[in-house]
Amino acid sequence: MIHTISQIRVRYAETDRMDVVYHSNYLVWFETARILMLDEIGIPYLEIEARGLRLPVLTATAEYKRPARFDDRLEIHLFMREKPRARFRFEYEVRHGDTLLATGSTSHGFMDKHGKGLRPPEEFLAKIDAAWKPQAAATEL
Amino acid sequence: MIHTISQIRVRYAETDRMDVVYHSNYLVWFETARILMLDEIGIPYLEIEARGLRLPVLTATAEYKRPARFDDRLEIHLFMREKPRARFRFEYEVRHGDTLLATGSTSHGFMDKHGKGLRPPEEFLAKIDAAWKPQAAATEL
Amino acid sequence: MIHTISQIRVRYAETDRMDVVYHSNYLVWFETARILMLDEIGIPYLEIEARGLRLPVLTATAEYKRPARFDDRLEIHLFMREKPRARFRFEYEVRHGDTLLATGSTSHGFMDKHGKGLRPPEEFLAKIDAAWKPQAAATEL
Amino acid sequence: MIHTISQIRVRYAETDRMDVVYHSNYLVWFETARILMLDEIGIPYLEIEARGLRLPVLTATAEYKRPARFDDRLEIHLFMREKPRARFRFEYEVRHGDTLLATGSTSHGFMDKHGKGLRPPEEFLAKIDAAWKPQAAATEL
Repeated sequence: MIHTISQIRVRYAETDRMDVVYHSNYLVWFETARILMLDEIGIPYLEIEARGLRLPVLTATAEYKRPARFDDRLEIHLFMREKPRARFRFEYEVRHGDTLLATGSTSHGFMDKHGKGLRPPEEFLAKIDAAWKPQAAATEL
Repeated sequence: MIHTISQIRVRYAETDRMDVVYHSNYLVWFETARILMLDEIGIPYLEIEARGLRLPVLTATAEYKRPARFDDRLEIHLFMREKPRARFRFEYEVRHGDTLLATGSTSHGFMDKHGKGLRPPEEFLAKIDAAWKPQAAATEL
Repeated sequence: MIHTISQIRVRYAETDRMDVVYHSNYLVWFETARILMLDEIGIPYLEIEARGLRLPVLTATAEYKRPARFDDRLEIHLFMREKPRARFRFEYEVRHGDTLLATGSTSHGFMDKHGKGLRPPEEFLAKIDAAWKPQAAATEL
Repeated sequence: MIHTISQIRVRYAETDRMDVVYHSNYLVWFETARILMLDEIGIPYLEIEARGLRLPVLTATAEYKRPARFDDRLEIHLFMREKPRARFRFEYEVRHGDTLLATGSTSHGFMDKHGKGLRPPEEFLAKIDAAWKPQAAATEL
């Protein structure tokens, strides 16, 4: 399993007139969590795109349990629980202190510049392998 | 079944450097489709909020099949296939001409200003009933 | 003078917790007004980019007088008061019925794909000329 | 003078199909710079709103010199060069390493919940005074 945590401070622009964070912004935060995870395993997203690869979002889900509000300091937890095959999946938890605000998931696949599906590059798989932790150990984080 | 269609023209601001629409914007379009549906059945969202009610998004999903691009004129199809109970669900299709670009869903429930869950108001249920069409007729649209 | 009017309906996503439209969204609306103007004079922005040209925003200003709110139907008035030279300028008014909510301006210049400044293409200047109206006539609109 | 510096890492969602940051996002970054400045002088924006005050943007300007791009680590410099009266003004510089990407300004005034203009609260003025530095010293930063 891979588990990374990124920090978000809610922007005024992300709120709406219900005085909560507008729901589509969680998908943007999920992406900041992916960017950080790729940094941490040593294959930054900018580098992936520099090789002519793309990593689009194929599906996205979110479940909103409690609202996030302006200026909240949040943790976005990203989990990869299965090693990548042609497609792969991330799960997310948005936490405010001890409170779980939302969960979500995205699935992805590599593509070339023309939108043609590709297998994940060997180096990506190797970096995932190197960062992989047994689930028991990972949950102790 | 209820089926409504809203028109979107893709804004420059909605694109990203992959030259496609950034994926979180589809959730914003789904909302414009809900707003239009509520207009069409005769209970505008602004009126719902004026009564002290809220109709937050509880879950959202999207599946991205083909990219939408700058200046595309899109149709956002909204479907309500089951009558509302405490919670209810909308499904969406994003279409560019004959091409299906994406599908999605959201689920919702009524709340008061303090976030307490409420049953849907009688008038809302009555308006849904009045607009309801047998599924066969609806698909002929 | 060129004067065009585009219609906007305020999206929920565009509001913030002060229950008004978040101020940066006016710049997005100004852009929808430019896109419409280019359509109307017969040289759509998509066509400009298809020729390898870019038309970036060089400066932007906005003055917020009264708030726009969720679901407001607004008119975005665009004015070009001086014919384009190397750079050119648009002015904007955001109106809600008879009420002026905001004014603004943007300035622009043509560039190639590499960001090098270019003189406006002849066809662009010709289309502007063809659409130009004496100021007196234009204000009677 | 007051001079604070906030850090931004450009999000994918902030880019557009010209492969640069979409111009309205600079106004959002200016706001993150104001929020940080208020934190640093000891009167967080959340606290201002908790007292029933609002601090809306009255005017905004931006001048775009060089594009910001995905994943850039930027510094947003905020400057307050004149002490606040009924209205007050911030200036901004967006820097990428030694390169100045953009400048801008916003002006503001305090309001109550109903949009009525108010003089700045004494505590706000006192906090500004306490943080104020002679311009010469400040520019040496």
